[in-house]
Formats: sequence, C-alpha cells, structure tokens
Amino acid sequence: MSDTVFDLPSSRAADYPGALGPTIGVLGGMGPAATADFYAKLIRATPATTDQEHLRVIIWSDPTTPDRTRALLEGGTDPTPWLVYGARVLAAGGADVIAVPCNTAHAFLPAVVERVGVPLVHMIEQTSRHLAALRPPVRKVGLLATTGTVRARLYETWLATAGIALLVPDSTSQAEEVMAAIRSIKAGKDDRGLLARAARRLVDRDARAIIAGCTEIPLGLETGQLPVPVVDPTQVLAEAVIAHARGGGLN
Amino acid sequence: MSDTVFDLPSSRAADYPGALGPTIGVLGGMGPAATADFYAKLIRATPATTDQEHLRVIIWSDPTTPDRTRALLEGGTDPTPWLVYGARVLAAGGADVIAVPCNTAHAFLPAVVERVGVPLVHMIEQTSRHLAALRPPVRKVGLLATTGTVRARLYETWLATAGIALLVPDSTSQAEEVMAAIRSIKAGKDDRGLLARAARRLVDRDARAIIAGCTEIPLGLETGQLPVPVVDPTQVLAEAVIAHARGGGLN
Repeated sequence: MSDTVFDLPSSRAADYPGALGPTIGVLGGMGPAATADFYAKLIRATPATTDQEHLRVIIWSDPTTPDRTRALLEGGTDPTPWLVYGARVLAAGGADVIAVPCNTAHAFLPAVVERVGVPLVHMIEQTSRHLAALRPPVRKVGLLATTGTVRARLYETWLATAGIALLVPDSTSQAEEVMAAIRSIKAGKDDRGLLARAARRLVDRDARAIIAGCTEIPLGLETGQLPVPVVDPTQVLAEAVIAHARGGGLN
Repeated sequence: MSDTVFDLPSSRAADYPGALGPTIGVLGGMGPAATADFYAKLIRATPATTDQEHLRVIIWSDPTTPDRTRALLEGGTDPTPWLVYGARVLAAGGADVIAVPCNTAHAFLPAVVERVGVPLVHMIEQTSRHLAALRPPVRKVGLLATTGTVRARLYETWLATAGIALLVPDSTSQAEEVMAAIRSIKAGKDDRGLLARAARRLVDRDARAIIAGCTEIPLGLETGQLPVPVVDPTQVLAEAVIAHARGGGLN
C-alpha cells in the first residue's frame, strides 16, 4: 500500500466553505454498535444548544476489519492494514485527531499512528488517567474486556505507571461469562446477567472499580448494579475528544 | 471550489486490503443526534450476527452546515457548498451511495448530486413509496416537519405522484408546537407533549398516517401515542439503504 494514496491537494481545507476548525476522526466499526454508542456519547457530552455548536466528525466504520482478539491470540488475519486504510480515509477527509472506540484495536494502533501521522486520543491512556484521579484513590481495579485486550496487557501497562494493580477474571469466567456476553451483544442480543456475575467475582477479589474495557460491555452492564464504580472508557474517550477539540489539546 | 479537489488516484480501491464491497456514505450532522439515530437504526436493521456481516459506512457529520430552514425561508446562508464538500469527502472515501438523514436538506440535494456524481437514496421518495404501499390504502397523511420542509413542498410533490394528499399544521401549530419542539430536541431537551398535540390536530382533520418528517421528530414523538401509524422516514431510509447494499439497487 502506497503511503501517499490518500494525500489530497493542500488546497483541500481552503475549499471548505466555512471555518474548518477541529474535525474529529472516528476509526470505528469494531463493532458498529459500539461506534454508534460512542458517537451518541460524544454528542451528548458536547455543550451545545444548536446544531452549529456541535463538533464536525468524520467516521470510518469498517465492520469487516478482521477480528482483533483472533489476530492477537490465534494467529488470525492482522487488522493493521484495515486500520491504516481507515485512518488514511479520515486524514484525507480532514481529521486532525483520531479516536478509536475499540479497546482491543489499541494493540495495533502504534503501527497505524506511525504510518498515518494524525494524533490519536488514546482511550486506554485516558482511562488510566481517569482512574488515577479518582478520590479516594483506587489501588486495585478489575477489567472486563476481550481475551485479546487482557492478554495484550493493554490496561495493565498503562495502569502500572499510575501505581494501580489490575485484576482480570479467571480463565473460566473470561471465556464463559465475558467473551460469551460480548459475542451475544455483537449479535444484537443482551445478557446482562453474565457480565454482572463476572464483575461481582472481581469485586469479591477486592477490585474497587471496574473497567468496562470492551466497547460492547457498557451496552450490556448497567452501572448501579455493582457496589463499586464502573468506568466506561467510551465515555472517558468522548470527554477527552471534546477537551481536545475545545483547545485543551491532548494531555 | 474546484470539482476535482477530492478526486483520489484510481488506485485507491485497489489498495483496500479486503474486498471493498458496498460502502454507504452518510451526509449528516443536520443535526448530529439525528445522524447518530440514523446510524443506530441502520445497524439494528442489518441482519448480522458478527461485526463482519455489517455494512461499511463513512459518515461526514458537519453540524456547522448552515440552517436549512433559515436558508429556505429567510434568505439565510445557502448550505449547498457545505453539502457538496461533505458529499465529496464521502465520494473520496469510497462511498458508492449517499444517504442524507435530514428532510429539509433534501431541498438542496439535486444541485449536490449533479456536482458529485454519487447516487442518492432519496429519503422523501422512499417514504412516499412506503406510504403508497400501505394497506388499507391511505389517501391523506399529515406532516410534522420543519417550516422549511413544509414550504419547500418536498413531501407534497412526491406524495402527489402516489395520489396521496398532504395535510400540514396551521401556522400557529407549525410555529408554536412543531418548530418549538424541534428546537428543543436539538438543544438536548425533550417535549413530547408539543408534537403529540400537533399530530392529534392533523388526525382530527382526517390524516390516516403521520410522517415524522424531521429527523428530530422520531426522537420526541413515540409511536403508539396516536390512533394512526407514524411513519419514520429515517427508518425507511435505513431499510432502503440496506436493500440497496444487498444488491437490490435503488428503486
């Protein structure tokens, strides 16, 4: 794949009829319902009373992107070329920052950012910062996520820098509760009981917060069902994107 | 604006790592919540049990597009250049059909289609076909829509070809119920009472179906509140897009 395929003439932005301002790129479709959920959260979290006060957004939603967990664990097709292609479409469309509402995809993003050159609002980094800022401080958190995200140690690595230990479900709960629930939600079904059960096991092991660490999980696990806070990285990402667009930049 | 700004090298599609297949372009942001609602409906209406069976979608959501009703009624800024720009971003990103989940914007689409050359799934045409196919046949329908859509006679023209008469609210109900409710929904509030009242006035005048003819209206008017069917053009558009993508083409 040529690195210049999606380069557009530099006159592009000048041809925009208004003031182009920040344009948020969303690399999505993993899965599509999680992308729609993120987009709705982004809109709800934007302080606006008219259409014109909302953010300009370009979304590339490619649900045919090969399964991230399968690529990490079973030698399945590497989704990186799909992610690079999508990021280039977003860059060509004027995105000046990219958000990826899929936890597992974050395992592949360093290679994507390197090839496309548009900054990323990193969902897992932002979620770790959010957890580190909780008061009273939380020293142990539980993770509900795909087996790919768990094994790639995405949260573990970021949380370690904040002095927070990560608890993950045992292998039976991971397979038969968490992954079963994620597949069920992706198929348009709902089985809240499975996720709540897996979360309670983590609380029993002293988790003082639960990360809903797959974009499908907030769709199937209501906060308020548990005695500890549930952190939704999709919501954290939406708020970080808005802070970026309003001039706070990435931090 | 040059007509070739967004032309990409013809190698683009060949660089896609998978089988490119149909890509749905969504020209949105008018308003953003209506676009998120359309995208969610498109996903829910797609028969799929895994991510990979869903449609590839590219969404350009530009809420800064000038107000369509104001352009039609008060000599406000013409939104056409914004719509052309967005349609070109979608075409450059590989969209082979464009859907516009905004009724009032349809008044400006003939000029857009002419300049961009990507076919449109026309929401108002599809809704008129849907109404014409209702059994028992409906001869009179009521319209809840922006004053811009009402005055531009968008539905009236399409429905006339199907032998269906259109009833619109009187000017007081249009201003104080319908437009007030639309602005309230765009501001993130909700006032279901206003829309239900306007709809009941149309039913009292013998409307046998109600068109929820502004993409904000289905968000504020629940079906089941009324003794006649409420047709949601956003839902009709989602189903028409899926039929197109599955090879039925535009009809």
